[in-house]
Amino acid sequence: MSGLTHLDDAGAAHMVNVGEKTVTQRSARARCSVRMQPATLAKLRESGIAKGDVLSVARIAGIQGAKRCSELIPLCHPLMLESVEVELSLNDALPGVVVEAECRLSAKTGVEMEALTAVTVAALTIYDMCKAVDKSLVITETFLLSKRGGRSGDWHHPLAGEASS
Amino acid sequence: MSGLTHLDDAGAAHMVNVGEKTVTQRSARARCSVRMQPATLAKLRESGIAKGDVLSVARIAGIQGAKRCSELIPLCHPLMLESVEVELSLNDALPGVVVEAECRLSAKTGVEMEALTAVTVAALTIYDMCKAVDKSLVITETFLLSKRGGRSGDWHHPLAGEASS
Amino acid sequence: MSGLTHLDDAGAAHMVNVGEKTVTQRSARARCSVRMQPATLAKLRESGIAKGDVLSVARIAGIQGAKRCSELIPLCHPLMLESVEVELSLNDALPGVVVEAECRLSAKTGVEMEALTAVTVAALTIYDMCKAVDKSLVITETFLLSKRGGRSGDWHHPLAGEASS
Amino acid sequence: MSGLTHLDDAGAAHMVNVGEKTVTQRSARARCSVRMQPATLAKLRESGIAKGDVLSVARIAGIQGAKRCSELIPLCHPLMLESVEVELSLNDALPGVVVEAECRLSAKTGVEMEALTAVTVAALTIYDMCKAVDKSLVITETFLLSKRGGRSGDWHHPLAGEASS
Amino acid sequence: MSGLTHLDDAGAAHMVNVGEKTVTQRSARARCSVRMQPATLAKLRESGIAKGDVLSVARIAGIQGAKRCSELIPLCHPLMLESVEVELSLNDALPGVVVEAECRLSAKTGVEMEALTAVTVAALTIYDMCKAVDKSLVITETFLLSKRGGRSGDWHHPLAGEASS
Amino acid sequence: MSGLTHLDDAGAAHMVNVGEKTVTQRSARARCSVRMQPATLAKLRESGIAKGDVLSVARIAGIQGAKRCSELIPLCHPLMLESVEVELSLNDALPGVVVEAECRLSAKTGVEMEALTAVTVAALTIYDMCKAVDKSLVITETFLLSKRGGRSGDWHHPLAGEASS
Repeated sequence: MSGLTHLDDAGAAHMVNVGEKTVTQRSARARCSVRMQPATLAKLRESGIAKGDVLSVARIAGIQGAKRCSELIPLCHPLMLESVEVELSLNDALPGVVVEAECRLSAKTGVEMEALTAVTVAALTIYDMCKAVDKSLVITETFLLSKRGGRSGDWHHPLAGEASS
Repeated sequence: MSGLTHLDDAGAAHMVNVGEKTVTQRSARARCSVRMQPATLAKLRESGIAKGDVLSVARIAGIQGAKRCSELIPLCHPLMLESVEVELSLNDALPGVVVEAECRLSAKTGVEMEALTAVTVAALTIYDMCKAVDKSLVITETFLLSKRGGRSGDWHHPLAGEASS
Repeated sequence: MSGLTHLDDAGAAHMVNVGEKTVTQRSARARCSVRMQPATLAKLRESGIAKGDVLSVARIAGIQGAKRCSELIPLCHPLMLESVEVELSLNDALPGVVVEAECRLSAKTGVEMEALTAVTVAALTIYDMCKAVDKSLVITETFLLSKRGGRSGDWHHPLAGEASS
Repeated sequence: MSGLTHLDDAGAAHMVNVGEKTVTQRSARARCSVRMQPATLAKLRESGIAKGDVLSVARIAGIQGAKRCSELIPLCHPLMLESVEVELSLNDALPGVVVEAECRLSAKTGVEMEALTAVTVAALTIYDMCKAVDKSLVITETFLLSKRGGRSGDWHHPLAGEASS
Repeated sequence: MSGLTHLDDAGAAHMVNVGEKTVTQRSARARCSVRMQPATLAKLRESGIAKGDVLSVARIAGIQGAKRCSELIPLCHPLMLESVEVELSLNDALPGVVVEAECRLSAKTGVEMEALTAVTVAALTIYDMCKAVDKSLVITETFLLSKRGGRSGDWHHPLAGEASS
Repeated sequence: MSGLTHLDDAGAAHMVNVGEKTVTQRSARARCSVRMQPATLAKLRESGIAKGDVLSVARIAGIQGAKRCSELIPLCHPLMLESVEVELSLNDALPGVVVEAECRLSAKTGVEMEALTAVTVAALTIYDMCKAVDKSLVITETFLLSKRGGRSGDWHHPLAGEASS
């Protein structure tokens, strides 16, 4: 109808049939940022130095979130992720934490939503751990940095110029 | 240690003991936005007019996401949500969709993370349905608009001036 | 709008606010039946005699299904079930299996959907175990037998005359 | 023992080994009906006209239920569904709502239980939304309409004569 | 029948009715150990020193496992945990890792299974991370150290003499 | 760094990339034991004789636990299990219950953790059902008996000499 692939001609939602698509090697990389007070970032940095779990908790939450993507996003296909990496970097310019995640697998459909779910859940976890000391927190600019594989091939987001890795 | 309540003195993560806290009536309201091409917003609007499910899918995903918050965010307490509302508004100025969610319950701990999870999952669902027609999508500015109840009382985010409802 | 409580004035779905409702002792009892070939019922009976797990699997599936009701039914409130019983009886007149479940708790909202989910999941589990030998299976007449507690008080379904227990 | 494939010779339940089965293209279609008062059906129709979410909620619940089939039915294999469609039609003759679902994938085992779970969860969701205005609701005649693929090939239920699509 | 509380007189499993029990403050503490080669323990210690996530992953897995106890153990009641702590200590005498967990809440039923699930899932997570370098791993002696609250009052396991904390 | 494959060079946890690994037929077999008072074992035996569900509950819990392994163990890959068997034997010498599980599939990664999760969840379920009559229960010696397939080929645990089947 409107070109939105998840709706049929009558506007009803469905999980689109990917049965005819080709299995290819696919990957996707997403990013988001958690902006906070400089003092909050200092606390995170101090915790990290002292071997605290603070970044580990967010990293693991992101990995587990990626695996549950199809339970959270109603029209996503279940997928057998072959690799998930979540990277967290403390960033003084923001100030805050930049979260990036990369998911990979061989499948008939892509892993963009899995990568986006990973960074989002990791960011919410950072928010949860910092909210008692900083209510000003904002999760900013969640987006797909790049994707590889599938019919549409490789793609990079225009905002991804400053992307790491 | 660093004032981060989810870490003990050695920096180890734990689910903090809320046993001594008082049961009070609590609520929290969060917001995020999905920025898209004007043409994508037009497609969403057209689908809505034609009774398509597109906004319903996102609304329901947000409600179900709120209920699963403690499974996603490792140090969140399980809670018995008494009310969840997710509101989606098409916004030409953005252009895109503004998502707001409000959660309520009587409990020993607050529902900020539930409200934030609701808007985030709803936004990811919109992203999923629009990504085939618009790769430029960005989820912007996810934050807590306000909270009520609990020891720290009522609070509004400085960015919440333009908040609806 | 239309009197459907899960929709607001604009027709948008929400998880209704039960915050103002009173905590009372509540229970609900549901029933459904799985109709099958007489030969299939005979196999089930024979398995039971031989200490097979066949009815146990269905009973446990029903109990676990009741606990996950709010994950499956989007607008159901999470609840802390205090009791779940699932009863299976082999019935020659049907012929087939009659499934009944009773759920109980003290809460602000009822457990009708939990009891209905329990019998439904138990019936689907019986279907799964019998489908290789009998494709004619039909799950018939799933309904609420009775409920107790809450503002509307006690109630029995008109069809419940022949109810067991 | 008794020919029930999910039980071993001693009657113990197991998840049967499908390792030796062939990957083929498979699909299954199931149906169930929710019978209600004519006035309740009228309310659903009115909500639909007014763009309410009522049918969308049930459709999405059904799709998500299909994806969770192996969590609910203890001896079902986890599967990677490639397509799920849930169709709801308001039916004056019933009176009520007819729910049909079709699931598809390439796999070593069939998707009958996934299609049955989809229609069942969708029907329970309709029940949940209507129960405040109509306690007489009954979910009737849940069964498999047809299946394709696998060793046993194509099959249609004798009751499926009146099947749509 | 046999005094096993989860079975009724006919031997059928049910989730026992705790509706009549009193809400009291309850806690439970469990322990298990992962025995490994001295060289494997040395690798874990080295990773910890280098700020690796290895113990954090296990700690968080244990906390999240505790929250999912009633999904895993069929006859456990859903509970609203108010506190979960998981402690891991590297132990040269074992040699290996000792895992202890403590859960707390106010409820009608105890949290023994939640504490046992926490240590078990944490131990399995350690196993998973070490299995590529050490196949001799054994999880030994999983048991309840102590419990407080409820009708039966305080209790300590006879083996708990050497308990840490 | 330390040879622990789940940590990258900086010690950060990730779900390792198995994309380059070969799909082979894999299986794994694990065992654990629940040690109890002789009188408790006698009650279990009596319940079994009377067709009680007690061993069925544990067997089904183990099967369902295997399917959820990747949700519980943070760095485990999601897998499509093709076969799960859980065997329980009452053992007078222990005295108690010996639990063994075998998982099988064709995949790029092994099923050791799935088999270990199955025996562990089954053992916890036995613990749960016996704890009201016997607080001395200990789950002893959880370990991998054997594995087949994959790059490292077949392997048997040194402790597996006395293994059944």
